[in-house]
Amino acid sequence: MTTQQLTQQIHLKKSFLCIGLDVDLTKIPQHLLQLEDPIFEFNKAIIDATHDLTVAYKPNTAFYEAYGIKGWQSLQKTINYINEKHPDIFTIADAKRGDIGNTSSMYAKAFLEDLNFDSVTVAPYMGKDSVEPFLAFENKHTILLALTSNEGAFDFQTLKTNGKELYKQVLETSKTWKNAENLMYVVGATKAEYFSEIRKIVPDSFLLVPGVGAQGGSLSEVCKCGMNKSIGLLINSSRAIIYASNESNFAMKAREEAQKIQSEMEEILKRTNTDYTD
Amino acid sequence: MTTQQLTQQIHLKKSFLCIGLDVDLTKIPQHLLQLEDPIFEFNKAIIDATHDLTVAYKPNTAFYEAYGIKGWQSLQKTINYINEKHPDIFTIADAKRGDIGNTSSMYAKAFLEDLNFDSVTVAPYMGKDSVEPFLAFENKHTILLALTSNEGAFDFQTLKTNGKELYKQVLETSKTWKNAENLMYVVGATKAEYFSEIRKIVPDSFLLVPGVGAQGGSLSEVCKCGMNKSIGLLINSSRAIIYASNESNFAMKAREEAQKIQSEMEEILKRTNTDYTD
Repeated sequence: MTTQQLTQQIHLKKSFLCIGLDVDLTKIPQHLLQLEDPIFEFNKAIIDATHDLTVAYKPNTAFYEAYGIKGWQSLQKTINYINEKHPDIFTIADAKRGDIGNTSSMYAKAFLEDLNFDSVTVAPYMGKDSVEPFLAFENKHTILLALTSNEGAFDFQTLKTNGKELYKQVLETSKTWKNAENLMYVVGATKAEYFSEIRKIVPDSFLLVPGVGAQGGSLSEVCKCGMNKSIGLLINSSRAIIYASNESNFAMKAREEAQKIQSEMEEILKRTNTDYTD
Repeated sequence: MTTQQLTQQIHLKKSFLCIGLDVDLTKIPQHLLQLEDPIFEFNKAIIDATHDLTVAYKPNTAFYEAYGIKGWQSLQKTINYINEKHPDIFTIADAKRGDIGNTSSMYAKAFLEDLNFDSVTVAPYMGKDSVEPFLAFENKHTILLALTSNEGAFDFQTLKTNGKELYKQVLETSKTWKNAENLMYVVGATKAEYFSEIRKIVPDSFLLVPGVGAQGGSLSEVCKCGMNKSIGLLINSSRAIIYASNESNFAMKAREEAQKIQSEMEEILKRTNTDYTD
């Protein structure tokens, strides 16, 4: 999927929501545990109930690896289900990978080609040759960690290097890499005040924004400072939506939560003067 | 396994070699491809041929994920085989993971508990709460990326932050984390001159050292600057050993390459005056 197509979907659905599919067997409705693949059945129900309200799904691979081979089967079934039923939805493998060149190539192939995700999250610590193998895939996207939403973000990401914070250096340096047009960035919503600064460095890139809701970030603040003419934001919500209820009506409750966020996004899009043309 | 036990194994085997099990189906002997699980059969042959010469095995998870569910089965069979046949060998899941706290916990459980590796490599970019969940496992080890062996290491790791390079800040900050005694560090051999500096910050920690051999680092130089009284080094070699030949005698050829390195290590250990007591 191209970023133009993603922006089109945002306008069609009046939503720039991304739903995180982070399935924890201890938190899902207990009746699902009797089924052969509870993780997939949970995801399928969530997807069926929310696909018209969201433009992206983001399974975090940790939650699947934690269940070993069965977990990987659930991940594969989930991405296949989305790609077959809803090919217009942008998919993100939240894997936070990164390794030396030949090894990153293996990860890139696994997520972008074999599993056929539209994008994968990647950690920047190992630099250019650890990221470029991901960037080499046409019409696929590499979502680089810049400023994350957790407390530990302040350990290294905000340290000053050459007079600017490390995450800003990551943004700047990454723009010089081959196929940099395939880059998006993770920027946590808990620091809305940083978005204006970030937009000076990457005015055109999509930002994947965790930390709205459960982690306390404000949607309207983030949009005020972070939106660009292509919208340029994917706001992720995981727990607040998928664990809205653990009763048999969990999918309907998840839809209600997604609907609340989508309505807020629709209002914001109405107020925003973008130069979008269909 | 404790670090004391690891040091004992080093003295017993006169080796501080770690063999990287990075299996690429395009590079292994073609006759193995007819078997049901070529990756595991390749690993098994390499392990059978080298286990007395090495103190550690390190599968890089990328090479297994690249083959999807079948790859995970091969990884599971490989770690089970090592743990059953050679419980004295230190095992490293080279996964370079790192995520927000609850997610890192899932990864930690997957690698340190379910797959039962002795250790896992972790990326530091997301800071304290992304690493501490790995450190919480008793007698398990978290091998934090400090200074990697690839060209991209110079993009961010060597940037000056507060007057010192980022990788030194990572070393210093990580020492303040809970259960920091379970930390080891990845330090690339391509920059042997850095080892003396690193030893000033982490005199007692084990360092996992890639980049000897294929990537051009010198074993004796690294040992001169990096060894401590517990030896404190695991020197990794992957391709130079496991792909020494792709003929039917590949395991014997791998053994010959491992033997060369082990002999060099035995010489170095003889020359080194350590205060080790059995």
